[in-house]
Amino acid sequence: MTKARIGVTGLAVMGRNLARNLARHGHPVAVHNRTAARTKALIEEYGDEGTFIPAETPEEFVASLERPRRLVIMVKAGAPTDAVIEEFAPLLEPGDMIVDGGNAHFADTRRREAALRERGLHFVGTGISGGEEGALHGPSIMPGGSAESYEALGPLLEDIAAKVDGTPCCTHVGPDGAGHFVKMVHNGIEYADMQLIAESYDLLRHAAGLSPAEIAEVFRTWNTGRLESYLIEITAEVLAHTDAATGRPFVDVVLDQAEQKGTGRWTVQTALDLGIPVSGIAEAVFARSVSGHAELRRAARNLPGPQNDVRYLSGFADDVEQALYASKVIAYAQGFHQIQAASAEYGWGIDLAKMATIWRGGCIIRARFLDRIRAAYEADPRTPTLLTDDHFAEAVGAAQDAWRRVVATAAQLGIPAPGFSSALAYYDSLRAERLPAALTQGQRDFFGAHTYRRVDREGSFHTLWSGDRSEVEA
Amino acid sequence: MTKARIGVTGLAVMGRNLARNLARHGHPVAVHNRTAARTKALIEEYGDEGTFIPAETPEEFVASLERPRRLVIMVKAGAPTDAVIEEFAPLLEPGDMIVDGGNAHFADTRRREAALRERGLHFVGTGISGGEEGALHGPSIMPGGSAESYEALGPLLEDIAAKVDGTPCCTHVGPDGAGHFVKMVHNGIEYADMQLIAESYDLLRHAAGLSPAEIAEVFRTWNTGRLESYLIEITAEVLAHTDAATGRPFVDVVLDQAEQKGTGRWTVQTALDLGIPVSGIAEAVFARSVSGHAELRRAARNLPGPQNDVRYLSGFADDVEQALYASKVIAYAQGFHQIQAASAEYGWGIDLAKMATIWRGGCIIRARFLDRIRAAYEADPRTPTLLTDDHFAEAVGAAQDAWRRVVATAAQLGIPAPGFSSALAYYDSLRAERLPAALTQGQRDFFGAHTYRRVDREGSFHTLWSGDRSEVEA
Repeated sequence: MTKARIGVTGLAVMGRNLARNLARHGHPVAVHNRTAARTKALIEEYGDEGTFIPAETPEEFVASLERPRRLVIMVKAGAPTDAVIEEFAPLLEPGDMIVDGGNAHFADTRRREAALRERGLHFVGTGISGGEEGALHGPSIMPGGSAESYEALGPLLEDIAAKVDGTPCCTHVGPDGAGHFVKMVHNGIEYADMQLIAESYDLLRHAAGLSPAEIAEVFRTWNTGRLESYLIEITAEVLAHTDAATGRPFVDVVLDQAEQKGTGRWTVQTALDLGIPVSGIAEAVFARSVSGHAELRRAARNLPGPQNDVRYLSGFADDVEQALYASKVIAYAQGFHQIQAASAEYGWGIDLAKMATIWRGGCIIRARFLDRIRAAYEADPRTPTLLTDDHFAEAVGAAQDAWRRVVATAAQLGIPAPGFSSALAYYDSLRAERLPAALTQGQRDFFGAHTYRRVDREGSFHTLWSGDRSEVEA
Repeated sequence: MTKARIGVTGLAVMGRNLARNLARHGHPVAVHNRTAARTKALIEEYGDEGTFIPAETPEEFVASLERPRRLVIMVKAGAPTDAVIEEFAPLLEPGDMIVDGGNAHFADTRRREAALRERGLHFVGTGISGGEEGALHGPSIMPGGSAESYEALGPLLEDIAAKVDGTPCCTHVGPDGAGHFVKMVHNGIEYADMQLIAESYDLLRHAAGLSPAEIAEVFRTWNTGRLESYLIEITAEVLAHTDAATGRPFVDVVLDQAEQKGTGRWTVQTALDLGIPVSGIAEAVFARSVSGHAELRRAARNLPGPQNDVRYLSGFADDVEQALYASKVIAYAQGFHQIQAASAEYGWGIDLAKMATIWRGGCIIRARFLDRIRAAYEADPRTPTLLTDDHFAEAVGAAQDAWRRVVATAAQLGIPAPGFSSALAYYDSLRAERLPAALTQGQRDFFGAHTYRRVDREGSFHTLWSGDRSEVEA
């Protein structure tokens, strides 16, 4: 009897499509689901796409895998993942691998990896981006875990991953939770990217007075230039769509309350722990959250806005393009900074150029400009920020006048642009010769004797604020 | 032998000053420290301020307290707190109280309260704000824990708290972790407040070209109006101060890298869990974090800024005052929103008007305008936001033109104003008739089949984006 090269348990749409992708690439794949009906349905509907080996019980499933076993679990993050691990781990033998393809929190992945390592098993927390379609046709895959496990798994995963210029969108990210961490930040950047697109749309609609169909055209044009990306492409599709029931623009019949699942929030919470400013991602998470507070918005709807109603049309769409591009660079700079910091903190040794490489295809934020980011990190793997790369410094420098006009216009017209303005403030903070943080330190010393450092000599100092205001060394 | 009415263990500066405050108010207070030298020093230096009962051992300390015992621990948050609890709890009897006056995370306080309740003890996580001076002369005190424990503790704590118009700045906040939660948000608001002041200073300095001494005068004037507050007052002091060693303005010799201790970060992380947008607090935490990334700033210092160097002087300080006031209202609205949400989540029943009341004195954010906040929540305890209170709606409405000018000016001159611009974006988001979140929901449905709701009928819907683009009910 043929042994399976790999097995997938958990055959909801993501698991099913991943199994099909493997089978389509010629890998005999064992399939298992808690309720057997799903396994049966998969075989019936897609059995001719490749070699599927269905299993009814965990024992049967494990027995059908060639050694060392490669077992992919595609179940809900959290307790269900722990339950499935506990179900299968006792059936495995040293050297076998459990691959978690769900959206686990990287801290859980670290915990699980350490526990299974004790038991001689490899645990490979793996970020998979691209949704259902990606899982079937080629996702971006971000596996963590040991280098040894990647030797056995990498070729299969690279086989089913998206390809860009022949390069698979899959690489070994780093040990233990590195893969899930990078996937989390990918999602955080996605939040920021979507928020910036939303602001661009809002400004074109309410500052320039364009219709959704006209704005769809603007996005279509942008998608032929440096902003070319999946998200820009589908924005044009969504904006061009007409609601059949009402004949109105689709975007006008959708309730304007955005939902979220948690990876954006995790990104910000983790960044705070690491001390990395990811204000663009935070503003995006908060913007979704504001939109969902229906009662609050209802109460606040009559608050006064600006009298000012001046619209400037000429060149405005071009200005917004510049603002979007510059703000997007900031969002990526912040996200990569966070990955860099986590890599140092956890000793992951993540290659940032490779992260840019595997995000070029398969995933939601796939974009032409990731090639530029790759080039920037290849040129200087230890650069503290993307913004100082020649290409990006020049592009943002050239965009800044327009970017500033857009932020100023939004403020004056009363159109919320938290993403654009936060990105600009980050840029101006970074390049500031002096920040008013000196005043903050002075205040902290005043009310809490927290001490301060000086610009002209080493040491910590305290001023005797309630005494003669002389300075003492702390 | 006199029994002590209350005891304090942990005699670093905060604990010592709190013990002295109690003794000065006529309460016999037992004092204990792990190393006896501190206890001895306290008696020697301040023994004549009241009745101190020194104890060398935990047993002696506990024996000196009248029943039910009131035992205040003033040690570092985290493991040291657990260690001290474990040291004393076995010596106590049912009905005794352990008061934790440190800056614990409210989740730790909830855990400790539950564990000690099992053992028949009251655990009272208590926020104390005001620093060393406050601890001695009257802090703002935010005790959580059971109502029963507040009956025994409240009179003592109210006695030593700051008073405003005869009202003590102390009240029972709510059960278990409520006190530490409210103290955490107090600190989060403090971060936002300080960031807004820092931006005001920076704009007056670099947009209007005023000197630190001149800006000190501006703050002094502001402190006679609606912005009257401790932080504005000490800002003027810090800005007016001259460095003795160099003869330069003090603020110019302080290293411009702000530090932080963690409560601001906790506030944002917790708000994310609760789904409450606290963008102003987040921007303040990130601004400190940016300032501290010395290497990053060094690398980015030469990034291009605006050519535009136009300064508008006439009326600019007044504009900044308006922007500061409006942004400050937003920061408080966000912080109170977070307390309201946590109170609902944990069943704490927090009276928001009382929180405003006890913050009027003793603490770092004490300010005249907290009386207005109190009035707003007294008028409508369930208002979803401060911003719809008549007074604040009118004040912010009147401020908005100036506020918008300031945000626009900052953007155009390249002066970072993340706090002002984020606050304005929040305001404009809340009052928006429609938000571009509808586009976000459309995108999410496109790439992840996450579904959306409609404005015109109930239910969840999905458009078959890769099919005929008809709509199906989900």
